[in-house]
Amino acid sequence: MSSRNIAVVVLAAGKGTRMKSDLHKVLHPIAGRPMLLHLLASAATLSPERTVVVTGAGREQVEAAVMPLGAKIAVQREQLGTGHAVMQAREALAGFTGDVLILYGDVPLVRAETMRAMIERLDAADAPAVVVLGFRPADAGAYGRLIVAEGGDRLEKIVEFKDADAAERAVTLCNSGLMAARGELLFDLLAKLGNDNAAGEYYLTDVVELSGAAVVVEASAAEVTGVNSRGELAAVEAMWQQARRAQAMANGATLIAPETVWFAHDTRLGRDVTIEPNVVFGPGVSVADGATIRAFSHLEGATVGARAEVGPYARLRPGAVLAESAKVGNFVEIKKANVGVGAKVNHLSYIGDAEVGARANIGAGTITCNYDGFFKYRTVIGEGAFVGSNSALVAPVSVGAGAIVGAGSVVVRDVTADSLALARGRQEERGGWAKRFRDAMTAKKKGQ
Amino acid sequence: MSSRNIAVVVLAAGKGTRMKSDLHKVLHPIAGRPMLLHLLASAATLSPERTVVVTGAGREQVEAAVMPLGAKIAVQREQLGTGHAVMQAREALAGFTGDVLILYGDVPLVRAETMRAMIERLDAADAPAVVVLGFRPADAGAYGRLIVAEGGDRLEKIVEFKDADAAERAVTLCNSGLMAARGELLFDLLAKLGNDNAAGEYYLTDVVELSGAAVVVEASAAEVTGVNSRGELAAVEAMWQQARRAQAMANGATLIAPETVWFAHDTRLGRDVTIEPNVVFGPGVSVADGATIRAFSHLEGATVGARAEVGPYARLRPGAVLAESAKVGNFVEIKKANVGVGAKVNHLSYIGDAEVGARANIGAGTITCNYDGFFKYRTVIGEGAFVGSNSALVAPVSVGAGAIVGAGSVVVRDVTADSLALARGRQEERGGWAKRFRDAMTAKKKGQ
Amino acid sequence: MSSRNIAVVVLAAGKGTRMKSDLHKVLHPIAGRPMLLHLLASAATLSPERTVVVTGAGREQVEAAVMPLGAKIAVQREQLGTGHAVMQAREALAGFTGDVLILYGDVPLVRAETMRAMIERLDAADAPAVVVLGFRPADAGAYGRLIVAEGGDRLEKIVEFKDADAAERAVTLCNSGLMAARGELLFDLLAKLGNDNAAGEYYLTDVVELSGAAVVVEASAAEVTGVNSRGELAAVEAMWQQARRAQAMANGATLIAPETVWFAHDTRLGRDVTIEPNVVFGPGVSVADGATIRAFSHLEGATVGARAEVGPYARLRPGAVLAESAKVGNFVEIKKANVGVGAKVNHLSYIGDAEVGARANIGAGTITCNYDGFFKYRTVIGEGAFVGSNSALVAPVSVGAGAIVGAGSVVVRDVTADSLALARGRQEERGGWAKRFRDAMTAKKKGQ
Repeated sequence: MSSRNIAVVVLAAGKGTRMKSDLHKVLHPIAGRPMLLHLLASAATLSPERTVVVTGAGREQVEAAVMPLGAKIAVQREQLGTGHAVMQAREALAGFTGDVLILYGDVPLVRAETMRAMIERLDAADAPAVVVLGFRPADAGAYGRLIVAEGGDRLEKIVEFKDADAAERAVTLCNSGLMAARGELLFDLLAKLGNDNAAGEYYLTDVVELSGAAVVVEASAAEVTGVNSRGELAAVEAMWQQARRAQAMANGATLIAPETVWFAHDTRLGRDVTIEPNVVFGPGVSVADGATIRAFSHLEGATVGARAEVGPYARLRPGAVLAESAKVGNFVEIKKANVGVGAKVNHLSYIGDAEVGARANIGAGTITCNYDGFFKYRTVIGEGAFVGSNSALVAPVSVGAGAIVGAGSVVVRDVTADSLALARGRQEERGGWAKRFRDAMTAKKKGQ
Repeated sequence: MSSRNIAVVVLAAGKGTRMKSDLHKVLHPIAGRPMLLHLLASAATLSPERTVVVTGAGREQVEAAVMPLGAKIAVQREQLGTGHAVMQAREALAGFTGDVLILYGDVPLVRAETMRAMIERLDAADAPAVVVLGFRPADAGAYGRLIVAEGGDRLEKIVEFKDADAAERAVTLCNSGLMAARGELLFDLLAKLGNDNAAGEYYLTDVVELSGAAVVVEASAAEVTGVNSRGELAAVEAMWQQARRAQAMANGATLIAPETVWFAHDTRLGRDVTIEPNVVFGPGVSVADGATIRAFSHLEGATVGARAEVGPYARLRPGAVLAESAKVGNFVEIKKANVGVGAKVNHLSYIGDAEVGARANIGAGTITCNYDGFFKYRTVIGEGAFVGSNSALVAPVSVGAGAIVGAGSVVVRDVTADSLALARGRQEERGGWAKRFRDAMTAKKKGQ
Repeated sequence: MSSRNIAVVVLAAGKGTRMKSDLHKVLHPIAGRPMLLHLLASAATLSPERTVVVTGAGREQVEAAVMPLGAKIAVQREQLGTGHAVMQAREALAGFTGDVLILYGDVPLVRAETMRAMIERLDAADAPAVVVLGFRPADAGAYGRLIVAEGGDRLEKIVEFKDADAAERAVTLCNSGLMAARGELLFDLLAKLGNDNAAGEYYLTDVVELSGAAVVVEASAAEVTGVNSRGELAAVEAMWQQARRAQAMANGATLIAPETVWFAHDTRLGRDVTIEPNVVFGPGVSVADGATIRAFSHLEGATVGARAEVGPYARLRPGAVLAESAKVGNFVEIKKANVGVGAKVNHLSYIGDAEVGARANIGAGTITCNYDGFFKYRTVIGEGAFVGSNSALVAPVSVGAGAIVGAGSVVVRDVTADSLALARGRQEERGGWAKRFRDAMTAKKKGQ
């Protein structure tokens, strides 16, 4: 693509009052990732030389989120308009030469392809100074209209709805506010902006007229949807999920009820994966070919091997790694544990900080006691071992390959391979006790 | 509002045959509350002097439901039309002077604001005798049309669809059947009703023409939606839920997938509450600021403290009270129990009839044995106590502050503060037993 | 209906490349049953004398699925068009006289009523040679149009979209491709088909023109929806579910959130059944009158008795049989087990290969240990028995009627009726140990 350098400026200084939140608006998550980071991830595919996030209130939150990505922070202390906001990036862009892409932190779904199209258009032979991103909403309503010269993409002017005549209002192409500009012109143009308007603000949009040479690139209405309230946040999440579900099916996964599967931004699915209704993927999950994720399962940071079966009602937490053909069943939680080839943890268990060997069978109600209130310890279960139901394995502890742990045992010492371990009370019986108890209690209950 | 007294008459005598149910139609719940009680709750905001529910078949069920609210029951023994139904309230309204609001038990979503608007219109200077509630459905279909005089709200006539000419059918304003009338006129008008029609019924609607002075108040189509089948019940539930979800988001809660969160009529949510996909709220739940309700959680009669974390897969039953920053995790059921500040019950536990002290840690698989088949007993766990995994606490019993219960213990006596309690079998091992067993069973299996 | 014999030919030779699956397209399930079997089940209501499935790649998979139903397989080795495909059924239909119904394995929702209408029309007095199934899609797009003579159902011609003039394109009646034909004519007509077209294929559609006497029967667009991708599979599943939910409600079940209930092809529901949000029915479930299935429940192969209560979070697996008024609560799995009248398994239990007597109470965390790694064994719990929480019942074992098992017991021998069984460790205490441990660990943690 462009042979020129690229800088990305993201405007994120809005207060986000309508969110009614202590969390900065642009940090509200979509698909398990702050919306600002969605945008920065798309922008990163352009390999920008610099990325600047312009922020105001809540600056610390934004800074903490973007610092690990190497983005710079610029601060807009007063809310004097979008043009003023971009001006605040001047220092962070000192010495930069190239193209500047201007995005909005609360417009998170803009695709990398769209960003690339904007930059590429800027570098075309006719050398426009500015590229404006347009879109055609279902209802153009009060959006500013983009008036384009016939037979091309040359922008004649942007007309605010309130100033538009009937012909202009009939135009369906609207201004998204996103823009790309040649860096060597941008700050000169911004310096010429006035604030002689009702709000007393410096509008980025006015750069277009000042530039005298703007063109339009079009995006879908979906990708320029903005988030100003929790309702809009949910709407954008829904759009994202719908697209991701369609993609999963197109790639060869069966989703029995696609509208009830929630993906994270980084979920990876193999071919012939089946996902039953009501499955939630948190970040960091990978599912291999032929695996089945049954209903009501919840996965985060987990790896599911080929032909493995998960759920219903399985919870895989970070560090859960299921090998080929492993099975994790209902009401089972797996955390930081490897479950070996063909091993089974089918019912009501907690397996944390553990190794479960290939073909081992973990009985219902098994708990790895991995925590003493201060430190975590590992449990190692050998290949082909059989852990009887309702057992507690008090880590650090190991159960040798081929060993059997009797049901209801509390295992506190290592179990030798191929041996039987029992650690439970002996059964005794008190004949007739239950009847006497029942009679006494019945009498007591009547007496109340 | 009105300085006159108000009486509310609710018609609920319909058989509800299409519901195919042994439960009276108006008692089918919406958002966890019988639809009739939704309506009476809205009407109660008008502080009516009397409320009369006219019922027929299934009278006992309705009576039991509304008696605690102080409503009177009138019985319509024969189904002779809506006018006849209102007539049955005459005795219950003996001595009443004021305005009468006529509602339908199977039209449950009428808003208090709409009821108030009807009453207030009745008391305006031009003193209409009757107020009819109109609405504009997406498809006016066969509804009766309200013909209103130009430039006002004066009702000229109600035309049944079958009697309407083309111009009248083009009218979009339809008759909901709801009405308010001046009480001193109502029963005189009703007495004049005839039943000279195909069905031989007395129609309340005919009161309008007899009154000679009716006006129209408009409601949204949604709020006058009626319920005659389980399909319509589900549709009204969906409408209610959609409105409630939008309200929750507007007030500052994040609903990742709003369409998968079900609220009860009385759910209360703080600010910056996050609700993941698939959460069901039964009646009586309150969630404080900053709390997170994770996926697949189910709450009834529970109180969730500030910044507490619930789920995924947590079930809070009536009397569950989580203090600030408490955590209740997967496959955990809490019932009649206080979980203290920062306390954790993270996995596979049943905590019922219990106190869990601040910062206590309840291990996976812990069960409070609160029931002996006859009575329930309490378990008290002190501050900072640590209950090892897979323990059973046989109530009545207490675990002192700072005490530790070893994993797999069955605690039947109180545990002293700061001490360690162990109540489990000792581990023994039979070397090679598992291998011999495996060989024998393999041989047996082959032999089959 | 028809007095003539019926043969059904199902075309299922398509490669289904867009499914990106190792499973043959027509075997992908809808409502828990391969789509081909849905179609064959509907066709079976016509009592066909023969059923032939024409298959190509993946023949073995299809053969294994339809053999148990007595269908014959014909193989189309080369993909030379739909006419060619039907030709492959010639041998399997040798000696057959009667009507032939031609269906598509990837058009699974065609109703038996529609099939019957096609056959009956074929046998009417005017004796058409061919019946073509038409439908009116929301968007007729590029479908072939059916041009029907005015005032009847006589098909004048089928026009491919690309060959259609404006008037023909305005026709909304489209060709589904499904057909019925008189068997004595069909193969003669097929023999006359040419492949002089761009694709070089033999088109079944051309039979219509050759026949000179075709008529049209109409179906809804929904029932002729085809499945060529996982997205379309999900769409057809959604259609099926929506219809099934509506039917359930019409028959007297309450579905609080119908869009979150998934039925299997054979689910049976009684009257006044309530189904809360998020319930999944696998195949083989029957629910009796007055039962409640609470949120997040998952049922397969299970029978739920009258007024029984299931869930929330209950998993009933094949062979779970709940008697009248039984209760199975949260995080409970039942498999091959009878739960008696009024018996309760309320919390966190696994009951497999078991009998639970009437009015027995199974405490939280109870596990039947039914498997030794090689064989399965049964647990029998008598009437009115009380099994204390966190107990393990090591099968084969029985707990007598009225007996009590103390909490936390591991029961390995039969318990006599009316007696108390205890099988657990004795409680001991080490005073101050917890404090010393805490101090030591705190120091260690600081030292790190």
